[in-house]
Amino acid sequence: MTVVTSVTPIRWVGDATSGVVELLDQRRLPAEEVWIRYDTAEGVARGIREMVVRGAPAIGVTAAFGVVLAARGGASLEDGVAALAASRPTAVNLFWALERMRAVIAERGADVEALWAEAERIRTDDLAANVAMGEFGAAAMPDDARILTICNTGSLATAGYGTALGVIRSVHRQGRLRGVMACETRPYLQGARLTMWELMRDGIAAELVTDGMPGHLMSRGEVDAVIVGADRIAANGDAANKIGTYQLAVLARFHNLPFYVAAPTSTIDLETADGSGIPIEQRSADEVVRIGGVTIAPVGAKARHPAFDVTPAELVTGIVTEAGVARAPFGASLAALEKMR
Amino acid sequence: MTVVTSVTPIRWVGDATSGVVELLDQRRLPAEEVWIRYDTAEGVARGIREMVVRGAPAIGVTAAFGVVLAARGGASLEDGVAALAASRPTAVNLFWALERMRAVIAERGADVEALWAEAERIRTDDLAANVAMGEFGAAAMPDDARILTICNTGSLATAGYGTALGVIRSVHRQGRLRGVMACETRPYLQGARLTMWELMRDGIAAELVTDGMPGHLMSRGEVDAVIVGADRIAANGDAANKIGTYQLAVLARFHNLPFYVAAPTSTIDLETADGSGIPIEQRSADEVVRIGGVTIAPVGAKARHPAFDVTPAELVTGIVTEAGVARAPFGASLAALEKMR
Repeated sequence: MTVVTSVTPIRWVGDATSGVVELLDQRRLPAEEVWIRYDTAEGVARGIREMVVRGAPAIGVTAAFGVVLAARGGASLEDGVAALAASRPTAVNLFWALERMRAVIAERGADVEALWAEAERIRTDDLAANVAMGEFGAAAMPDDARILTICNTGSLATAGYGTALGVIRSVHRQGRLRGVMACETRPYLQGARLTMWELMRDGIAAELVTDGMPGHLMSRGEVDAVIVGADRIAANGDAANKIGTYQLAVLARFHNLPFYVAAPTSTIDLETADGSGIPIEQRSADEVVRIGGVTIAPVGAKARHPAFDVTPAELVTGIVTEAGVARAPFGASLAALEKMR
Repeated sequence: MTVVTSVTPIRWVGDATSGVVELLDQRRLPAEEVWIRYDTAEGVARGIREMVVRGAPAIGVTAAFGVVLAARGGASLEDGVAALAASRPTAVNLFWALERMRAVIAERGADVEALWAEAERIRTDDLAANVAMGEFGAAAMPDDARILTICNTGSLATAGYGTALGVIRSVHRQGRLRGVMACETRPYLQGARLTMWELMRDGIAAELVTDGMPGHLMSRGEVDAVIVGADRIAANGDAANKIGTYQLAVLARFHNLPFYVAAPTSTIDLETADGSGIPIEQRSADEVVRIGGVTIAPVGAKARHPAFDVTPAELVTGIVTEAGVARAPFGASLAALEKMR
């Protein structure tokens, strides 16, 4: 199957021994497309922390290429890997990718070519996983579907195609999509800025909605299904994702709508028993009180900014992965999927 | 009881026969305090439509003073009243205030002094209603309460003190308030811009939250009660309010939290049987894709903008009015309150 990935958020420019990582600065989309170049692991870690790149799978791929830079640099390889591991706490794909890179280091040491090849495999594996996920997820969606989603889970959040947005792309390619409602996803507006940008580039019918509208739209029968991504899925199926996801799951349940989570098996963390063990990153209040340089609240206003929330497994209809759709009881179904991968 | 109303959104400057209406431009708060002067009913209608002033009770008071201007102008009094009636469709207080003014016209014609006196009574009645509502509502709130609210329902939305925010003020004055969580309330950000401004001026502990956070905060046990205002309450208790309110009611129900609506009896519309009969204003998509002059979505992005939603009575714990707290069955309790007023 040929997959068109119209955009990629991460590129390696040059060969393994002298190339650099370039990240598309997602903070500046859709107004402008600016690439930032990194030639150290510490730089890449800063890019992740400052959300130049975001999205659990994309963070994993980026960190893998960061390890290649660390292996080449004058500083210690372990320090570079540690800096990458400390960049953001919630997305487990980061740690999963670093584990894969550490396995190469354990066997080959700071072999730059081998590390680069592994990072490239992590990237291509993720892309392939997304395409497979798209097919499994699309089969689970109703026909003529009006699908609501949150944040950005598309090409920009992954190695390409996307997780939840990949499923939406597959439904669209099958001619079974009536439309997408993209929650704007405050405070970072990933839905307004990134998801709308991707959908409009692909010619997919999409409407932007504020984060206060989903309940109203559901109550009017205008939503057929909800699908979201995940940053970490615990062994019991509890799923951490962008703040705002949990309440979409509650609203879907109240309105008897299916609520799906789409994520590669690399997002499943069998070491974490349930959602209470998932660290939730608390980010700066500044990111809430300012929008695009405009301060929206009085000077000195306090604000909350948990970057993620946890949706309990009992609110999840199914978890779409590249190995199939897991359903309750998730403890058994996720463990079975992990064995298949 | 002495009530400090630190701010008023509407002022009449001068005497009845030559004075003008001035509105605090709420679109520019909290960055700057700018007053706009109006000397015609049509101008006042435009100010309401363009949201210089907003909030159901404040719209009613403003329209009443607009009728005074119409009675003085060269154009037809009826045309002026009609322009005011056409300014915004959802808030019933607008029509209620115009009815009161029409009753004076029926008896006294274009008697400017009489009309001004009635507008002033509408204003003082609203302020008194809010203070009474505050006491009734505070008695219904739990002790040491952490209260979540949406939009702005304070002095800026009324003749002073506020409806839901008035209740919060009363809880605070009783020393029983632990804190307020203000939903930012996209797209207009009335919570971030106006509610935070009022609460900070009054020294009330408040945190700003995005519209995607309430479910998460409730699931963590950080919210004790939700209280909101209303733009129109149907005879059966269904309540129209700012978009985003309905899903707060669903979330409160899911987490077994009390959900109160606070509004003067002038907001109760016994002529409308249930929420399906309440007109929901659809506003411009531009108001969603732009924030403070910054465009947040790709050029040409489609967006939804229902300005209000309807919360069904079965999700409402109680309706706080100046005549007491109505509880289910609301058909009977609201009718009884209306008789008392």
